[in-house]
Amino acid sequence: MTDIDINGERLLTSLQELGRIGALEGGGVCRLALTDEDQAGRDWVVAQMRALGMSVSVDGIGNVVGVYAGEQDLPPVMAGSHIDTVRTGGLYDGNYGVLAGLEVVRTLKDAGIRTPKPLAVAFFTNEEGSRFAPDMMGSLVFQGDLSLAAALDTKGIDGSTVRENLERIGYRGSAPTGAAKVDSYVELHIEQGPVLDIERITIGAVEGVQGISWTEFTVSGVSNHAGTTPMRLRHDAGQVAARVACFARELAQELDGDQVATVGSMTVFPNLVNVIPNRVVFTVDLRNTDGAVLRTAEQRLWAFAEESAAAEGTELSRRSLARFDPVAFHPELVNRVEQTARELGYSVKRLPSGAGHDAQILARACPAAMIFVPSVAGLSHNVREHTQPADLIAGARVLLRVLTQLAGRNASA
Amino acid sequence: MTDIDINGERLLTSLQELGRIGALEGGGVCRLALTDEDQAGRDWVVAQMRALGMSVSVDGIGNVVGVYAGEQDLPPVMAGSHIDTVRTGGLYDGNYGVLAGLEVVRTLKDAGIRTPKPLAVAFFTNEEGSRFAPDMMGSLVFQGDLSLAAALDTKGIDGSTVRENLERIGYRGSAPTGAAKVDSYVELHIEQGPVLDIERITIGAVEGVQGISWTEFTVSGVSNHAGTTPMRLRHDAGQVAARVACFARELAQELDGDQVATVGSMTVFPNLVNVIPNRVVFTVDLRNTDGAVLRTAEQRLWAFAEESAAAEGTELSRRSLARFDPVAFHPELVNRVEQTARELGYSVKRLPSGAGHDAQILARACPAAMIFVPSVAGLSHNVREHTQPADLIAGARVLLRVLTQLAGRNASA
Repeated sequence: MTDIDINGERLLTSLQELGRIGALEGGGVCRLALTDEDQAGRDWVVAQMRALGMSVSVDGIGNVVGVYAGEQDLPPVMAGSHIDTVRTGGLYDGNYGVLAGLEVVRTLKDAGIRTPKPLAVAFFTNEEGSRFAPDMMGSLVFQGDLSLAAALDTKGIDGSTVRENLERIGYRGSAPTGAAKVDSYVELHIEQGPVLDIERITIGAVEGVQGISWTEFTVSGVSNHAGTTPMRLRHDAGQVAARVACFARELAQELDGDQVATVGSMTVFPNLVNVIPNRVVFTVDLRNTDGAVLRTAEQRLWAFAEESAAAEGTELSRRSLARFDPVAFHPELVNRVEQTARELGYSVKRLPSGAGHDAQILARACPAAMIFVPSVAGLSHNVREHTQPADLIAGARVLLRVLTQLAGRNASA
Repeated sequence: MTDIDINGERLLTSLQELGRIGALEGGGVCRLALTDEDQAGRDWVVAQMRALGMSVSVDGIGNVVGVYAGEQDLPPVMAGSHIDTVRTGGLYDGNYGVLAGLEVVRTLKDAGIRTPKPLAVAFFTNEEGSRFAPDMMGSLVFQGDLSLAAALDTKGIDGSTVRENLERIGYRGSAPTGAAKVDSYVELHIEQGPVLDIERITIGAVEGVQGISWTEFTVSGVSNHAGTTPMRLRHDAGQVAARVACFARELAQELDGDQVATVGSMTVFPNLVNVIPNRVVFTVDLRNTDGAVLRTAEQRLWAFAEESAAAEGTELSRRSLARFDPVAFHPELVNRVEQTARELGYSVKRLPSGAGHDAQILARACPAAMIFVPSVAGLSHNVREHTQPADLIAGARVLLRVLTQLAGRNASA
């Protein structure tokens, strides 16, 4: 048989159409979770699923799963992602994985093909976490790592609860949560980083998601006059913060592999040109795909900060703002993504994800993997987020092959 | 003849009395320049001057000079300082020099002594600059370095002008400004730094005032995702700022003498834990008594900042927020202060002033010097500002001797 292919134009058109819901003036999209815009986006995607003859279920936290029945009644091979956005989002973050999944189903339907196993396309509630914490809320409840009751009681930045908003928009469904029955999960997503774009590679075979450690340090010194206080008598909280910031960079460069370190936030008190700072609050974001190296980075960072603070005669306290162990995707599935991309003639690179994704939660329930396509200039969570049409089409082609193979169909090139 | 001595109790009482005008609940004083509280303080000091039989003149910017006539009609030997305070001031900053000057006059009057040259006690308008910029406004106009018209037109933080406020409080006088006729000037002041207190020294013979260079740097980099952006691809404005802050400290320690460097203010954008900073605005305050070393420090700092910014692939701009050359006090007068302290049995140390004082302006018109006494823990511009009574009395004793010698009287111990 000659093999099937996705319809690239149709995929691009569907991305543009969904992007018009909640569109911002001048570009970009705002569809914060469980708002009216999110409801309109959901309704539009659900209508697409129904038009494809998929059976649609909504669970208690508003996750939507559309199933394209297989020849056998087995747990589905699932493609998924999310359609909520940050306040200044783009067209592709999340939406791309969902709509490419539907394009795969549309391609199969047009060709009259049913795979042995069912194919599901899911979108999970509140992946972004911009309005309700934590992020990845829907997949956490789906997988059973967050209780439905706790998630429903969550208050958002405007004080209203997840429950109220789900009911208001009509997406508090009855499908069960907490014991996901999924054969395997593949999430197609834009990279949201610069690596593929800079290296001019089309497909990323994502090996896992970096572990994350966020530490907030508070250094307490002594404010004094910038003119009259000799250097040897200072207890300058700002100097400690600056030294730790420099050390974080050196540490990331020294440690092997993918270690990254970022001092993104620093607030200085009293923040006056002629007063020695008496208090500085700053954060260090450490990430690594290797849990052991990440722990080493944390230990060395904390030790350096303590030594620096002591040497300056200042007090140091720290607290953890976030801590996630790395997630490794299913090795066979990662290999399959890589091999499929090569078979289709695309350049491919194995790489970690620096951002969090629903796939890392699904990985606890079933074999899971991700496919990345390049983000121009690495921009995301930004109205200028962009991916070249050819790359969007390439990613969907890889997804088609991987999903249909996982679902038991042996397609030939 | 047996020598005269000041009345310590009387001096301390007068400091307490003036400190009740504009007193803050819980301690400290707020008498911002040209407010009702300043007016009340001025009226109180002028009443003291008149009670001592001094002739009082008020010039066009509100500087008040009380003269205790000498045997000859010559330019006066002047003691002076200011009685305005910062918003959270103490009892001693400025007030001490003025009231100790009056205590000297009171001592002479009680002993029936007239010096060959007249003795003047002055307080200058708006030394602090907390309400109207620049600071040291009164002495600048007195000496002729700032035009009276420009000073009167100055708008304060509340939008009202110096002229309006001077007229409102009745201190826009008619004595001429701009051509100070002063024999010599001695300002007694609390150190406002920790050196004398820590070294347990009673008297500071102030050699000069540090030159000041304030630079504001703005580093512009590229914001990006803290997880997905490899270290080698970053243009992190915060890293540049941190490196420059560390360098400023090293530079101050490496350069000889009294070089100090302070990074007091740093503002990070967007200041989020997981976003690489794209902009940081920060200041470096450099001070030195040696103008050449100060220029070297500036050049090395600016060069390092430019190299760091370039190495990180960021843009750097800088602007000067303030620049004053160092002032050296009159060597013979500094020696006289030092020698007098020794003769009176006090420990004494030559040191620079890190803060600005009216004496540095008067130094352009006549031989000038300053006498410092310790500030407990170096605190000033703080309601907890404190100097031990014994030190306040010691400073006034040195002032008495130095002033009467300058005025032509040879007192014996």
